[in-house]
Amino acid sequence: MSNLLWPGDHHAGDYFTDSAFLDAMLRVEAAWSVALTEAGVAPPDAAVTYDVLRDLVGDADLSAIADDAESGGNPVIPLVKMLRGRVDTVAVGRWLHRGLTSQDVVDTAVMRCAADASEAVAVELERQARILADRSDEHRHTPMVARTLTQHAVPTTFGLKAAMWLRGVLDAREQVAEVSFAVQLGGAGGTSAAVVELAGGGPARVAAETSTIVARELGLEATTPWHGARSAVTRIGDAAVTCTDSWAHIANDVLALSRPEIGELTEGAGGGSSTMPHKTNPVLSVLIRRAALAAPPLASSLHLAAVDTVDERTPGGWHVEWDTLRTLLRRTLVAARQTTRLVDELRVHTDRMAHRLAEAGDAVTSEQTTMAAIAGHTPAGQYLGAADFYIDAQLERLRTMTRTP
Amino acid sequence: MSNLLWPGDHHAGDYFTDSAFLDAMLRVEAAWSVALTEAGVAPPDAAVTYDVLRDLVGDADLSAIADDAESGGNPVIPLVKMLRGRVDTVAVGRWLHRGLTSQDVVDTAVMRCAADASEAVAVELERQARILADRSDEHRHTPMVARTLTQHAVPTTFGLKAAMWLRGVLDAREQVAEVSFAVQLGGAGGTSAAVVELAGGGPARVAAETSTIVARELGLEATTPWHGARSAVTRIGDAAVTCTDSWAHIANDVLALSRPEIGELTEGAGGGSSTMPHKTNPVLSVLIRRAALAAPPLASSLHLAAVDTVDERTPGGWHVEWDTLRTLLRRTLVAARQTTRLVDELRVHTDRMAHRLAEAGDAVTSEQTTMAAIAGHTPAGQYLGAADFYIDAQLERLRTMTRTP
Amino acid sequence: MSNLLWPGDHHAGDYFTDSAFLDAMLRVEAAWSVALTEAGVAPPDAAVTYDVLRDLVGDADLSAIADDAESGGNPVIPLVKMLRGRVDTVAVGRWLHRGLTSQDVVDTAVMRCAADASEAVAVELERQARILADRSDEHRHTPMVARTLTQHAVPTTFGLKAAMWLRGVLDAREQVAEVSFAVQLGGAGGTSAAVVELAGGGPARVAAETSTIVARELGLEATTPWHGARSAVTRIGDAAVTCTDSWAHIANDVLALSRPEIGELTEGAGGGSSTMPHKTNPVLSVLIRRAALAAPPLASSLHLAAVDTVDERTPGGWHVEWDTLRTLLRRTLVAARQTTRLVDELRVHTDRMAHRLAEAGDAVTSEQTTMAAIAGHTPAGQYLGAADFYIDAQLERLRTMTRTP
Amino acid sequence: MSNLLWPGDHHAGDYFTDSAFLDAMLRVEAAWSVALTEAGVAPPDAAVTYDVLRDLVGDADLSAIADDAESGGNPVIPLVKMLRGRVDTVAVGRWLHRGLTSQDVVDTAVMRCAADASEAVAVELERQARILADRSDEHRHTPMVARTLTQHAVPTTFGLKAAMWLRGVLDAREQVAEVSFAVQLGGAGGTSAAVVELAGGGPARVAAETSTIVARELGLEATTPWHGARSAVTRIGDAAVTCTDSWAHIANDVLALSRPEIGELTEGAGGGSSTMPHKTNPVLSVLIRRAALAAPPLASSLHLAAVDTVDERTPGGWHVEWDTLRTLLRRTLVAARQTTRLVDELRVHTDRMAHRLAEAGDAVTSEQTTMAAIAGHTPAGQYLGAADFYIDAQLERLRTMTRTP
Repeated sequence: MSNLLWPGDHHAGDYFTDSAFLDAMLRVEAAWSVALTEAGVAPPDAAVTYDVLRDLVGDADLSAIADDAESGGNPVIPLVKMLRGRVDTVAVGRWLHRGLTSQDVVDTAVMRCAADASEAVAVELERQARILADRSDEHRHTPMVARTLTQHAVPTTFGLKAAMWLRGVLDAREQVAEVSFAVQLGGAGGTSAAVVELAGGGPARVAAETSTIVARELGLEATTPWHGARSAVTRIGDAAVTCTDSWAHIANDVLALSRPEIGELTEGAGGGSSTMPHKTNPVLSVLIRRAALAAPPLASSLHLAAVDTVDERTPGGWHVEWDTLRTLLRRTLVAARQTTRLVDELRVHTDRMAHRLAEAGDAVTSEQTTMAAIAGHTPAGQYLGAADFYIDAQLERLRTMTRTP
Repeated sequence: MSNLLWPGDHHAGDYFTDSAFLDAMLRVEAAWSVALTEAGVAPPDAAVTYDVLRDLVGDADLSAIADDAESGGNPVIPLVKMLRGRVDTVAVGRWLHRGLTSQDVVDTAVMRCAADASEAVAVELERQARILADRSDEHRHTPMVARTLTQHAVPTTFGLKAAMWLRGVLDAREQVAEVSFAVQLGGAGGTSAAVVELAGGGPARVAAETSTIVARELGLEATTPWHGARSAVTRIGDAAVTCTDSWAHIANDVLALSRPEIGELTEGAGGGSSTMPHKTNPVLSVLIRRAALAAPPLASSLHLAAVDTVDERTPGGWHVEWDTLRTLLRRTLVAARQTTRLVDELRVHTDRMAHRLAEAGDAVTSEQTTMAAIAGHTPAGQYLGAADFYIDAQLERLRTMTRTP
Repeated sequence: MSNLLWPGDHHAGDYFTDSAFLDAMLRVEAAWSVALTEAGVAPPDAAVTYDVLRDLVGDADLSAIADDAESGGNPVIPLVKMLRGRVDTVAVGRWLHRGLTSQDVVDTAVMRCAADASEAVAVELERQARILADRSDEHRHTPMVARTLTQHAVPTTFGLKAAMWLRGVLDAREQVAEVSFAVQLGGAGGTSAAVVELAGGGPARVAAETSTIVARELGLEATTPWHGARSAVTRIGDAAVTCTDSWAHIANDVLALSRPEIGELTEGAGGGSSTMPHKTNPVLSVLIRRAALAAPPLASSLHLAAVDTVDERTPGGWHVEWDTLRTLLRRTLVAARQTTRLVDELRVHTDRMAHRLAEAGDAVTSEQTTMAAIAGHTPAGQYLGAADFYIDAQLERLRTMTRTP
Repeated sequence: MSNLLWPGDHHAGDYFTDSAFLDAMLRVEAAWSVALTEAGVAPPDAAVTYDVLRDLVGDADLSAIADDAESGGNPVIPLVKMLRGRVDTVAVGRWLHRGLTSQDVVDTAVMRCAADASEAVAVELERQARILADRSDEHRHTPMVARTLTQHAVPTTFGLKAAMWLRGVLDAREQVAEVSFAVQLGGAGGTSAAVVELAGGGPARVAAETSTIVARELGLEATTPWHGARSAVTRIGDAAVTCTDSWAHIANDVLALSRPEIGELTEGAGGGSSTMPHKTNPVLSVLIRRAALAAPPLASSLHLAAVDTVDERTPGGWHVEWDTLRTLLRRTLVAARQTTRLVDELRVHTDRMAHRLAEAGDAVTSEQTTMAAIAGHTPAGQYLGAADFYIDAQLERLRTMTRTP
């Protein structure tokens, strides 16, 4: 899979690709077969492992499954048909997918893929946080001019700027950590009637039992069905956008401060031009900003899908979620890795910062003069207020956060 | 204030109106004066109460402040000028707003207004949850047909449908509860340099101290400055949309099931027509769906504003937030109250539900037949699976949640 | 009406306010009464003028109408009831609104208000175009550095930059001119059955005839009903966003080039700060950028409303349009007037431009050197290519466009 | 290329795939070489055909180009490097891409791909229009109930409903026809300085001349550079969304009217279920509605990209456009073809329509009774008003439209 039109896409690797999604669907079907047999609903020989299923259906089948997905509206129908047609164990063929509906498989597979991608994003957030904490600490005495509405305001430090970036990253890390990824298993109408029937119509706890087993097998949370309550999906999107929002601040600052007239920051490498040999562009920042601009509409698509929820399965709104979430999470992961590299390699030109501050003159000292006059004293040296204290607050927050396992 | 073009707007009352926002700004200025004096930065006679400020500037001034807000880009500049021009205590005039910047006042006032509106929404969510829990329990033995992709699927109960609505409402309640509303106080460049200078350039903890006092006075959380990390704002929007998402499911189900051909649900009252005397329309559902459709783009605007964050104050992105959040929260509150009424007055036609299920025949029993055959038994009576168990899970969740103070 | 949270809102004056919308609804009812009588459907004494209706219902009634609008979902029902209750001519009371449905009145009134606001926007676009054309021509020999991806690229002229801004403005002007504003009159189900029945069930052309008369009275286009085809609304939104898009380029360039380190452009006035006496901010650009950031989600709301179209009147999607379009158009008009002022008062610092270009050195000449080497000659003086030709192309386009009446 | 998560994606075939985009870039480079030689800028042996370039670089290189695209931010830089490294004609290698910048190639290639996809959409719109015109005419005497806000209103005909669908399709067809697809050629800074320099710094008309030749070679319009005026892109998006909006109305009506309780319409085929053997779902409508829900946020992304325009090349906003437009247009084409099939195969159950109307009783005759009483006559038979006239208006519009070549 390549994406000529989203440079950097390769950083998302195999996460949430068609192949990964096929994989996840097969894992759901395998986990369900384990659940049916463990719970005593199906005979032991109905159990099938993911490896066995993966041998039956592979990437060579993706195109056929995708094409056939149209007639039923989702890829599970052709997949199950293909598996049943190819499996040579009678019990497996007989019991495969029994008790499930397409939405169970799709929703749970989406959660598995989303959890993987989110975990990879979280790893990057933590890397960024550590790098930014170091930079913030290192530059706590690097003065520079604070800019508000594009104009020079008062002095600040690059350490405090980095601490504000860190704050954004930690906010995002917290929001990502709040998201839970749970199985969605309710059968045709959300009642789990089929599995209860398969179990002889006996006690309904077989529904909870199978759900718990599937969750365990897939590394997801167990919960009751949520086919009609989609915040499980929208929260993933909201958290992803909170990440790209926070990275955008970093990218925007680099874009502004690496303008040649300012030159206080430059990217480690920088990109070339197809026609201007001497040019280096802040390419990582450009691509990160791109991702951040495109993310909010995608997250709003997930909410708009939720708005459409009706009956026990939504016609259209449900179908919007899959490719939208995939695109959003892959791009978020790309931007995550680009941001880690950006902050890691970022060059800080402390001389330019100092020079600018000196040159700015009255523009950055006028407030201090006013305040000193009101308080009735002469200006008290450096005008950096609580900058150090605010840096320490974020460093401390990171320490506390990472003490959590 | 009326809004002809958003019927029901009056349910949002005075929340986040221009008058309420003026009030909130005055409360911030008053709280800051308390902080300055309590912390020993300003002399005792520099303290001013909200009541005093409210006597100086009132709703009659709104139009002038709004017009003058353009030249500086926000309403704080003309407000402070007006207050200083009218106050007759020298110390108050001298110390008013000293140490603050416009963004401090706007952001903190926005948080105060948003907290009020969110609290009112939370009250409605809890009302809805109690009503839905009762309805879910009451109708746990009311069978009806489950519909997927608009077509009849398998049997379910109205109790389980109401429990799914309840799940959505509880999900929203949780997300609303996670939002915190904190002061934003950092001065001109986010360093709190002005207040430290006013305090003689001494220990930076005066910044933390004044922030804590302002938070206490306003009933908000204390925190370090977040002018460049806007998830404080986007989380409010995300939570609001999660509310309207969940209400949309209820409204959509009522819209579908109150079609005359179905008639399983009808609104308590229902609206009239300007030309058709016999017509009653599911007006609450219509208006709730309206709010839900319009909410995600507004919440995405808040994220897009965050994406724009640059330097120590964002040109444009910051200014997008205010009216967008106001509109989103007022509409959310309107929809909240309409939803409470909708679920409270909703008429459930159990006879129509039973009739439909009986009539549906094979369409809703075919799965059971298949499952029984696979399991090798005759169909085991009612095909309602774990419906009761899933109802109980949401009822239990509500009990646990409301035990929290 | 004030809007503390959207500084500059007063520039939109009375356009599309509640009062203006009430006015428009009254005009629709009056025009319909004229149509009924002119077409011979109603007796001559059933005709009523707008002035008479305006005397019956005024701004003092807005709040009551707005509150009552909830029960039917739109403001027409309480308005018609109020009018019928207050009118003292029997024939007028008997015939008022007969043949119409609420949607006819709302849609047609929305079109009238939208047409007014769009016309005011068009006037600004033309002013901007003339100013930009003059500036482009005046500065065709003002060299400056072209910047790509924030970095210095090659030389250009400020005249060409202004011509690109002009191109955007003319593109927007064309798109605004393509929008047509038409009456929407179809009665309860879009068949115009009521008016045909009122006319005795005779020839259906009474529907076309009354529609034509209403269009003439209101200064709108006549057309067949479009209750189920909403591009009439979405095109207004798309055109408005195309305007704000084009102004954003101007605002963004001013924001970037008025950074103190660059200083090639500054706003005529510039806004102050609540705490920093020496500061001037590019406030108009800030507020224009704000409008541009907030506009696309609003226009997408109009499309999402259209996506919801179902049956002969849409539950929810229709109701989203009104306040959304109002907000979008008022903000567009505010931004229009701010942009006119921005381009009119903009200060161009040609010395800074020249200085920057000289200083940039190799960064802006490297491409020329390469090209000359490939072509086998020495660099041919100024490296401005077809800049003048591209300026002339836009100037010519403006001349052609304004020759159209 | 498969897309498991967007069932039906195969209907978009090769349009705007990575392979198609590579193709388009090669065509741009080839066309430019023709322009350079025809205009006498480069020697005749510098010309290279698309076929020659396609032999040098193919789909096997996509992955490498995509990966390398990150360092410069776009795929042109690695592509040109690869071509220069592989071409064995010295003159071609020397002159290839000379005078162009990456944005020229990307923008023009995007336009070529977009024009192809839009043309394919237009073909479907015309097919739909013809089918709907036939159905509208055929069913002009098929009475059914009109529904407003989900409730029965007055009688209408299925012919008129189809004519309203037709109106939407024709509106979309008009908007698609208004879009023009033009080359974007301005060189490094939008001045075309490089090509003028290559031509010896002589008359600037070489810029216009080469642009005209490239346009001719690629089947696009010629125009002056629009790197900083992006309505060329946003109009494509707006037109695409207007298409999906109009198809949504059809899909929504089918979803509502194929509910088993209504049963007035059913899809020709209908999709199956993975667990319920008897079920048929309105799958085409589901998938069309899906596309329509997801489209407006994508189109708003294009506007948000335009809002970001700054300097002579936008960092981030420009990069958002490519994959967004590709996704939007591919999905639009998928929905186009699904809609053609939907309207072609749609089954109209006239008996159910007649039965429903008869059954509705007072609910649909009350308005007529009122109107007749006001007019002082007995109800005049059928209450269908101008339904036929409105059908004819759309049929006539189609005839006029298709007379245009």
